Amino acid sequence: MTLWQLEQIRIVLVEPAGPLNVGAAARVMKNMGLRHLVLVNPQCDPASEDARRMAVHGGDVLAAARVVGDLPEALAGCERAIATTGRLHPQAQPLDLPETALPWLLPTQPTESFAAALVFGPEDRGLSNEELVYTQRWVRIPASDDYPSLNLAQAVAVCSYLLHRQVLSQALGQALGQALGESFVPASGVAQGGHLAPLEQMEGFYQDLEIVLLKIGYLYPHTAPSRMAKLRRLLHRAGPDSQELAMLRGILRQANWAVSGPAKDG
Amino acid sequence: MTLWQLEQIRIVLVEPAGPLNVGAAARVMKNMGLRHLVLVNPQCDPASEDARRMAVHGGDVLAAARVVGDLPEALAGCERAIATTGRLHPQAQPLDLPETALPWLLPTQPTESFAAALVFGPEDRGLSNEELVYTQRWVRIPASDDYPSLNLAQAVAVCSYLLHRQVLSQALGQALGQALGESFVPASGVAQGGHLAPLEQMEGFYQDLEIVLLKIGYLYPHTAPSRMAKLRRLLHRAGPDSQELAMLRGILRQANWAVSGPAKDG
Repeated sequence: MTLWQLEQIRIVLVEPAGPLNVGAAARVMKNMGLRHLVLVNPQCDPASEDARRMAVHGGDVLAAARVVGDLPEALAGCERAIATTGRLHPQAQPLDLPETALPWLLPTQPTESFAAALVFGPEDRGLSNEELVYTQRWVRIPASDDYPSLNLAQAVAVCSYLLHRQVLSQALGQALGQALGESFVPASGVAQGGHLAPLEQMEGFYQDLEIVLLKIGYLYPHTAPSRMAKLRRLLHRAGPDSQELAMLRGILRQANWAVSGPAKDG
Repeated sequence: MTLWQLEQIRIVLVEPAGPLNVGAAARVMKNMGLRHLVLVNPQCDPASEDARRMAVHGGDVLAAARVVGDLPEALAGCERAIATTGRLHPQAQPLDLPETALPWLLPTQPTESFAAALVFGPEDRGLSNEELVYTQRWVRIPASDDYPSLNLAQAVAVCSYLLHRQVLSQALGQALGQALGESFVPASGVAQGGHLAPLEQMEGFYQDLEIVLLKIGYLYPHTAPSRMAKLRRLLHRAGPDSQELAMLRGILRQANWAVSGPAKDG
């Protein structure tokens, strides 16, 4: 599936100093369907061996990275820009959550002229107040008070994932919640095909199971009903499909044969 | 804010080969409030300069990492385990979305006895089918078809962020679902008490089950692994608690006695 909305988003790294970070950022961009990497006055060589090694198959994103002199140049042509920051700022511009703000970067309909940017600061200092003013919104990735500062490439990973996830949900024409239920198989309690074994077949199985459990001396007539009720609950939770039920019946048949068949050889 | 729910989760890396990845994973764990790193048969030195450099202030998480020999040892004491996988599997076990599955790892109330694990495979091959069977649920991080394979530490970052985010939302008295579309479904397929049987007890049961199924002629050595994998999936979906597991073990013991005990009276 082509997620065209993502192709109009630039990931802007301001003065990145670590080639490993630049390479890892390119890789996760490629993973998440983002193409446009812009490096503002990089403090490392994006064509270095370290950067290329970390990019792996994101090497094309890395190779196509545009190098510019300052942030306004990186944002030229953009309609919207969001900055990431780890700090709480004295001016008290409200900091958005990534989930709230990032969807705002996505175009709502295909148009060649649209461009938007997500900006990350240098590893050591983050974006300065002077840099932040070039963007309309600021997001902070929620993190532990003990150590809130994410590695640059990790921050790119989290934001890229959230953008991809948002577009994927939109592309499926559904709220994310529905996407979870429909495009991906329902979480648990349901067999893989989604079709449970018919209840009358389950009934037949339970009856045969009870007979075998009585035969092997696990059940006694007076304990059978309550024990069988517990076994039913357990299996109902699993929700076997027909194939799985056939497997359980196969076990039962073989067990029955082993305890009462003509040729018991232990 | 202390997010106690996160302190009972182990991040398990199976045979990680890159010290940079191990260090970066430790850093983002610390960022996201996760403490327990377990390395299964690591193929690199977690105390190396590279690892420590990437961990930065997550050095304490890295230094406290537990090294074990195999995955079952890493999961000992856990009630719940989720594996991450990039592949679509022939057996077509449903792959959950991280947003759907990961909240299932979180305890609903403070209890010292609860532990859960999130498992990541080696950089080059991911988790094998043999390794996947030790966990109850599998998640795949949605990514571009062009290049779906995330860097190990990036995958840890995305999942750790989502766990942190979920707990934060709970702590704030909101479902993250509201930001994302109410995607967090309560874990189904779980025993009613909420406490699953410990995974090492489940392992013991599966081993005994295999012996009995071989004995009654349901399994043959060459079919055993794939059949056992199917049975594991079925039971993992059901999520037995300790009492239910004891019941299953009772059946097994009695069946074993019936087919091999001294007094078979049919």
